[in-house]
Amino acid sequence: MIKVGLLGAGRIGNVHAKSIVANPASQLVAIADVNHAAAEKLANEYGAQARTVDDIINDRSIDAVLIATSTDTHSDLIEAATAAGKAVLCEKPVDLDLERALACQAAAARHGRPVMIGFNRRFDPNFAAVKRALDAGEIGRGELLAITSFDPAPPPVSYIKVSGGLFRDMAIHDFDMACWIFGAAPVEVSAVGTSIVDAAIGEAGDVDTAVITLRFADGRIAVIKNSRRAVYGYDQRLELLGATGLLQAGNMLENTVAKTTTAGALSAKPEFFFLERYMRAYEAEWRAFVQAVEQGGAMPVTLQDGVNALAVAEAATLSARIGRAVKLADGRPVVA
Amino acid sequence: MIKVGLLGAGRIGNVHAKSIVANPASQLVAIADVNHAAAEKLANEYGAQARTVDDIINDRSIDAVLIATSTDTHSDLIEAATAAGKAVLCEKPVDLDLERALACQAAAARHGRPVMIGFNRRFDPNFAAVKRALDAGEIGRGELLAITSFDPAPPPVSYIKVSGGLFRDMAIHDFDMACWIFGAAPVEVSAVGTSIVDAAIGEAGDVDTAVITLRFADGRIAVIKNSRRAVYGYDQRLELLGATGLLQAGNMLENTVAKTTTAGALSAKPEFFFLERYMRAYEAEWRAFVQAVEQGGAMPVTLQDGVNALAVAEAATLSARIGRAVKLADGRPVVA
Amino acid sequence: MIKVGLLGAGRIGNVHAKSIVANPASQLVAIADVNHAAAEKLANEYGAQARTVDDIINDRSIDAVLIATSTDTHSDLIEAATAAGKAVLCEKPVDLDLERALACQAAAARHGRPVMIGFNRRFDPNFAAVKRALDAGEIGRGELLAITSFDPAPPPVSYIKVSGGLFRDMAIHDFDMACWIFGAAPVEVSAVGTSIVDAAIGEAGDVDTAVITLRFADGRIAVIKNSRRAVYGYDQRLELLGATGLLQAGNMLENTVAKTTTAGALSAKPEFFFLERYMRAYEAEWRAFVQAVEQGGAMPVTLQDGVNALAVAEAATLSARIGRAVKLADGRPVVA
Amino acid sequence: MIKVGLLGAGRIGNVHAKSIVANPASQLVAIADVNHAAAEKLANEYGAQARTVDDIINDRSIDAVLIATSTDTHSDLIEAATAAGKAVLCEKPVDLDLERALACQAAAARHGRPVMIGFNRRFDPNFAAVKRALDAGEIGRGELLAITSFDPAPPPVSYIKVSGGLFRDMAIHDFDMACWIFGAAPVEVSAVGTSIVDAAIGEAGDVDTAVITLRFADGRIAVIKNSRRAVYGYDQRLELLGATGLLQAGNMLENTVAKTTTAGALSAKPEFFFLERYMRAYEAEWRAFVQAVEQGGAMPVTLQDGVNALAVAEAATLSARIGRAVKLADGRPVVA
Repeated sequence: MIKVGLLGAGRIGNVHAKSIVANPASQLVAIADVNHAAAEKLANEYGAQARTVDDIINDRSIDAVLIATSTDTHSDLIEAATAAGKAVLCEKPVDLDLERALACQAAAARHGRPVMIGFNRRFDPNFAAVKRALDAGEIGRGELLAITSFDPAPPPVSYIKVSGGLFRDMAIHDFDMACWIFGAAPVEVSAVGTSIVDAAIGEAGDVDTAVITLRFADGRIAVIKNSRRAVYGYDQRLELLGATGLLQAGNMLENTVAKTTTAGALSAKPEFFFLERYMRAYEAEWRAFVQAVEQGGAMPVTLQDGVNALAVAEAATLSARIGRAVKLADGRPVVA
Repeated sequence: MIKVGLLGAGRIGNVHAKSIVANPASQLVAIADVNHAAAEKLANEYGAQARTVDDIINDRSIDAVLIATSTDTHSDLIEAATAAGKAVLCEKPVDLDLERALACQAAAARHGRPVMIGFNRRFDPNFAAVKRALDAGEIGRGELLAITSFDPAPPPVSYIKVSGGLFRDMAIHDFDMACWIFGAAPVEVSAVGTSIVDAAIGEAGDVDTAVITLRFADGRIAVIKNSRRAVYGYDQRLELLGATGLLQAGNMLENTVAKTTTAGALSAKPEFFFLERYMRAYEAEWRAFVQAVEQGGAMPVTLQDGVNALAVAEAATLSARIGRAVKLADGRPVVA
Repeated sequence: MIKVGLLGAGRIGNVHAKSIVANPASQLVAIADVNHAAAEKLANEYGAQARTVDDIINDRSIDAVLIATSTDTHSDLIEAATAAGKAVLCEKPVDLDLERALACQAAAARHGRPVMIGFNRRFDPNFAAVKRALDAGEIGRGELLAITSFDPAPPPVSYIKVSGGLFRDMAIHDFDMACWIFGAAPVEVSAVGTSIVDAAIGEAGDVDTAVITLRFADGRIAVIKNSRRAVYGYDQRLELLGATGLLQAGNMLENTVAKTTTAGALSAKPEFFFLERYMRAYEAEWRAFVQAVEQGGAMPVTLQDGVNALAVAEAATLSARIGRAVKLADGRPVVA
Repeated sequence: MIKVGLLGAGRIGNVHAKSIVANPASQLVAIADVNHAAAEKLANEYGAQARTVDDIINDRSIDAVLIATSTDTHSDLIEAATAAGKAVLCEKPVDLDLERALACQAAAARHGRPVMIGFNRRFDPNFAAVKRALDAGEIGRGELLAITSFDPAPPPVSYIKVSGGLFRDMAIHDFDMACWIFGAAPVEVSAVGTSIVDAAIGEAGDVDTAVITLRFADGRIAVIKNSRRAVYGYDQRLELLGATGLLQAGNMLENTVAKTTTAGALSAKPEFFFLERYMRAYEAEWRAFVQAVEQGGAMPVTLQDGVNALAVAEAATLSARIGRAVKLADGRPVVA
């Protein structure tokens, strides 16, 4: 049984709280949030204590912290928590700045404590089944991966401005997915972005629709389509062409009902957003973390994975701006 | 918050225990089982007490009992629990004998306490969506209902012998589904059964494969297909032809992955059995019971519904034996 | 190259004319119709001659006749044509009267000429794939067959009155399908019918919605659902549960397009009616006939098959009327 | 009735011959091929004459020619045939060289005869339904188009060497599809290619797997995935995200049968290759050409469309080589 402190009691903190409590091998003992009332409310619900971040990090009886605070605090908290001997599960992204993330990675490495980054989609049963089938050789070598990743609606422009941009904020999940499926980081990134959903997003210097093509050292290619708006819900699919077949992971639908009338056959929409689609993935993610902590093995998603995805995001941001492919050398973007 | 005693700590008792505990409006306080060790084990898991059935029924602090014991005890326990002033949720079937069930219904009516029968499939999100669409007039009048209901594998013959037969044990869910969808009990039942899956089932006097056709007073028809063996898993579908369209509820699959190779496109099997397929339905069933108890309204599934389904089962058993349609008059089977 | 006379220039005659002409191994030389103008029009279109039925049957240069006239002429024309030495492909049903059909079968047998009955659905690529998979052992023994067969809209009541009723006119295709899939004729027929689509059909003494259950000697069961009205189009599906799997043949849709909006995912309707759905089947049926004539082998659908389906139709008609299972003994319905 | 000369009696010439003959408004009178025996064989089959190209072009009684010869002859034959007053349907591409195609376009314009380019996929019922739905406003403005276009197996390297490369030979269909769907030519092309299917293709200077991203003037984006090898067959799909919905056109499958066993649910593969998948499209293409010729209206696919697709192909070839986005200005590729 590991004792857990939760940092952050917002929307995603609530999701994680539920997973921590549901898991018989972990106990939620303390919760912190800049909004202390939010921490208290959540703590009351689950029989935990609302405390400060420092208090939790310095409490020797706490084994692990889950960092679900705002992005700008991630690197600092990872460093502080690992320095204090905690195992850490930190929400993505590690940081909006690649150099800061690299420094954080170096610091955490010195403390020798395990850090996992919350790329929850790896734990989705559909994507996981694709990965298993690929690794089992069921379609031979994977050659061309295509990821579709659309949100139901764009966030407020105020959020867009501090988000780091579509590539760091939204596509970063897809970059990790591509790296994970292919078991490697790409060597070259080409991105095309546009602001067609909402002109205000363009005025804020960001894009809302993008296509990113990743080339890997051995010639494999991954292409990612992103849009901030798919009115019908969260659209999260992937397909992978291999030497001997094709793997496709589809959306999870609200139900299995079809209604056929003179208008055609109407079936259900995808689950609306990430809380619905990835609820089981969040639970599985937490189980995997707890198991790795208990068994002392490698984390299923590492800080290196978080840094890799961020490097791709930085390269994509640059590529979309200059209209050229950007290479990745020693984990940093380089214009040829 | 209602206090709940659980009678029965077997497989289905375990399922219900989880729903009771997960619901913030109900508290699992006591568990009984003929196998006291099983009751103790489950009680320890959820912080409840293992007690005797009598003890629970006579405990005035307990508001409701959930009856998940063997079928032959259902009627007695419903009567005892309602006599003791409890609200009751009882697993299906009410009884294997229609006359006993009718007597139980009469007794319970005298005590004036609410009794709900556990036809969990009504709470499946897919079947519920069909019912909602029908009631909203989306396909006009429903005219021809077809239910497919296959188990993955037959139970042991020892169970078959005490089960009351396929029509009372397995098809009873489908009889309730038909009555619920159509909002009425049928007036005539025609059944054809065969023992083709396992000869031992036939030797035990039962069938393992059957088709039952129900005719309703206004001419609507429902047809049910049952098999004790669908090797690919639990096959639970229905479709309803109406005046202006067709509604179909499909299986829930293990995942959304398809693999296309030279052999074709391979997608996932249905969820394996009722624990997987109907987990969400059991939770929703319990929520509906708690809500009805708290609000004092009508039960979403009544003892009358349980008696109706049993009458159809009795008629089907008779029809399959004599090769004639059997009418239902005043809730009892009548050969024309 | 076989020379062919076409008897009947109505809707189905037009379909067959196209198949005859498209097949390089057959030549359409003459067409007859009670409406001579219709025969002339069709003959002109394809470079054939419009002639009388007698003229065609007595023309020794003609190798085969395709009978696509009204049902009441089928038996007489089969007898006359086989007596004149022709190979015959006759549209279903052989006759509306079982005894007349049996007499026709006996007469044709004396002439020793091949007769094929036009159960076109056997040549549908989807149903044929099911049959092949079953015969190849891909799902073990077939145990429970379910056929869905809905027309888009009922015919005029004037047609209903001379049609022989739903079981002889519409379900007869499904009876043949069941016999063909299972490779046997059933031993018992139980039918339930209702007139719910159109009261006028009931007043004309027929049903418009029905469920027929067939039991085969070794315990296998087939169930057929019929409706005269599925507003979304021709609904022609089947599924077969076997010892090691399930085979399902779905509808052919108008296109493969799906549109997903906030309302859900809308895909295409089934092909509208038999001319659309079974166009390829009619061509394949004709190719099979020509090949059997040329090679002198057995017809792929025999007059016996036509008689079998008619006997089932007669039994179903009787069963629906008396509410009892009707046995088939020596090819004739018998009430137990 | 228009009289038609067919230039080219190879595989695709055979396809077109069938469409010409099947259409009651066109008559196939003459066929030419460098392999005269092939022309004679095809001519005999359809009652046409085998003649030389010059002979056909100079025959004043012939109204239209269909050019299905090798690519290097297309421009010359378009010029000669239009100079001789013929209407022309020419297979794609116009030429492998953009400047030659532009000169051909100018020459044909001087002769004032209608020229249609054989982008057959526009006539596929599925893609056509997507186009209709988009133009009818069913998903609002189209914003992000994704085309999947995989061949079952790569052609011989000897063909690759003279093909003009994947972008001119294979992707050109997809470039036209994107331009047609969006009703515009792109302003910028970014391509990433790799040779991962077959090293010999890379040694021949070509790629076998590619992703091309097209940006349109108003910010819309199209992305095309190509592979020379999808072992399961011809994979031809597209999907279009719009402001109010998503349109998806799927593959046409060999049949509608699914087999569910303990291994999962196995359904059919896509139709194997273009002859199977696009047979109906070729027929519809020819009908559209004949109708446009007879009515004197605009061709449904113009020489300008052929030139546009070729310009995109040239830009993609360049972009893949230099790793930069290539702009299109005045219909020609320009490196920024």
